Amino acid sequence: MTSGAGLFVSFEGGDGAGKSTQSRLLAQWLRAQGREVVLTREPGGTTLGQTLRDAVLHGEHVDARTEALLYATDRAHHVASLVRPALERGAVVVTDRYLDSSVAYQGTGRELGADEVENLSLWATRGLLPALTVLLDLDPDVGRARLTSAPDRLESEGDDFHRRTRLAFLDRASADPDRWLVLDATRAPEDLAEAIRGRVATLLAAGAAAGPAGDDAAEPAVAGGVEVTP
Amino acid sequence: MTSGAGLFVSFEGGDGAGKSTQSRLLAQWLRAQGREVVLTREPGGTTLGQTLRDAVLHGEHVDARTEALLYATDRAHHVASLVRPALERGAVVVTDRYLDSSVAYQGTGRELGADEVENLSLWATRGLLPALTVLLDLDPDVGRARLTSAPDRLESEGDDFHRRTRLAFLDRASADPDRWLVLDATRAPEDLAEAIRGRVATLLAAGAAAGPAGDDAAEPAVAGGVEVTP
Repeated sequence: MTSGAGLFVSFEGGDGAGKSTQSRLLAQWLRAQGREVVLTREPGGTTLGQTLRDAVLHGEHVDARTEALLYATDRAHHVASLVRPALERGAVVVTDRYLDSSVAYQGTGRELGADEVENLSLWATRGLLPALTVLLDLDPDVGRARLTSAPDRLESEGDDFHRRTRLAFLDRASADPDRWLVLDATRAPEDLAEAIRGRVATLLAAGAAAGPAGDDAAEPAVAGGVEVTP
Repeated sequence: MTSGAGLFVSFEGGDGAGKSTQSRLLAQWLRAQGREVVLTREPGGTTLGQTLRDAVLHGEHVDARTEALLYATDRAHHVASLVRPALERGAVVVTDRYLDSSVAYQGTGRELGADEVENLSLWATRGLLPALTVLLDLDPDVGRARLTSAPDRLESEGDDFHRRTRLAFLDRASADPDRWLVLDATRAPEDLAEAIRGRVATLLAAGAAAGPAGDDAAEPAVAGGVEVTP
């Protein structure tokens, strides 16, 4: 983390786990402290992304690779046009789903191969990973019962698909505990929000401890996230 | 090439080189012989592809990776939903632009790296390459003078961009002469059509010589094109 730079936080988990609720609560808390927060989502965080979201979730049937590429295209544009510029000016970016959803849903759920799907997204985003990924872990049966609108293409997949994606999220989280915070999504929303705030506060304090904010336009292209080489 | 299988032919070259004219002439000639021909183009050969074509050529500004991913998504869906099924039932597929355009325009013209862009398209298409790629080679200045409609995003790029893409096409062609037929696009259209028909006739004869057409549903997934491992 670099001084003067933002913080990139993603929320992951199955449908109905409370990602949008917790994203919103986190954004409210950060804004109350005077932080600039960009609250966004994937797919569909940009105008082009909305077109792609409609195509992938509600459009004609597409094969698994086309589906993975639609998500990667959405992600590339989201990162280049919204996420990176916000991080560079010091904002906190909170996104409802990011790269790990693609790895879980297209890589493992669709059996394209987790590494292939991850590499595709890392190429698309020039290697941008969140500094913190919150996994709201939930039994898919419980999550489904919470849904209030008609299911989209992924939501209407079978039980086995959703069990595989849940395990994929848990596996990724256990392999990289520095980045992930795994929470039991059946806990009370305010308890969850408190746990998330604790982790975010630590990250922000670590960033602040690095020194006073600079106004150097030549700051690293990515800060507050982790740059990896795909 | 396998008996009972189709033939995959792509046309490449700069704007105004005559790709759509020659694609059409080839399709007419093949149909006159009773062949099923699927005459298509990239981007935009499918309904989803038309949406992506509009986004990439006429929509909001996107960065180079997003642009490359939009083309790869279009290509993945085009191949999975139209090109492969047509080849599998024995049709000749004639496409106005394919993977080599991405390598030339996004890989070399945009300087993303030819190998990266090619690997992306090979992943998107599960390695499908045409059996024949016709390059209609033309000085970009001459091609531009031939255009009759308002230029799209790529057409309105500068001279240096178009010179680099022309050289990229020529380099690719000289590296793989079995697949490529390079023609001087200033030649008379009927001369060009004759040269193309000669090469296509040879390929079709080679396919026919392999034996009588089979009706085995378990024929190779790709025939009449070359399958490579990305």
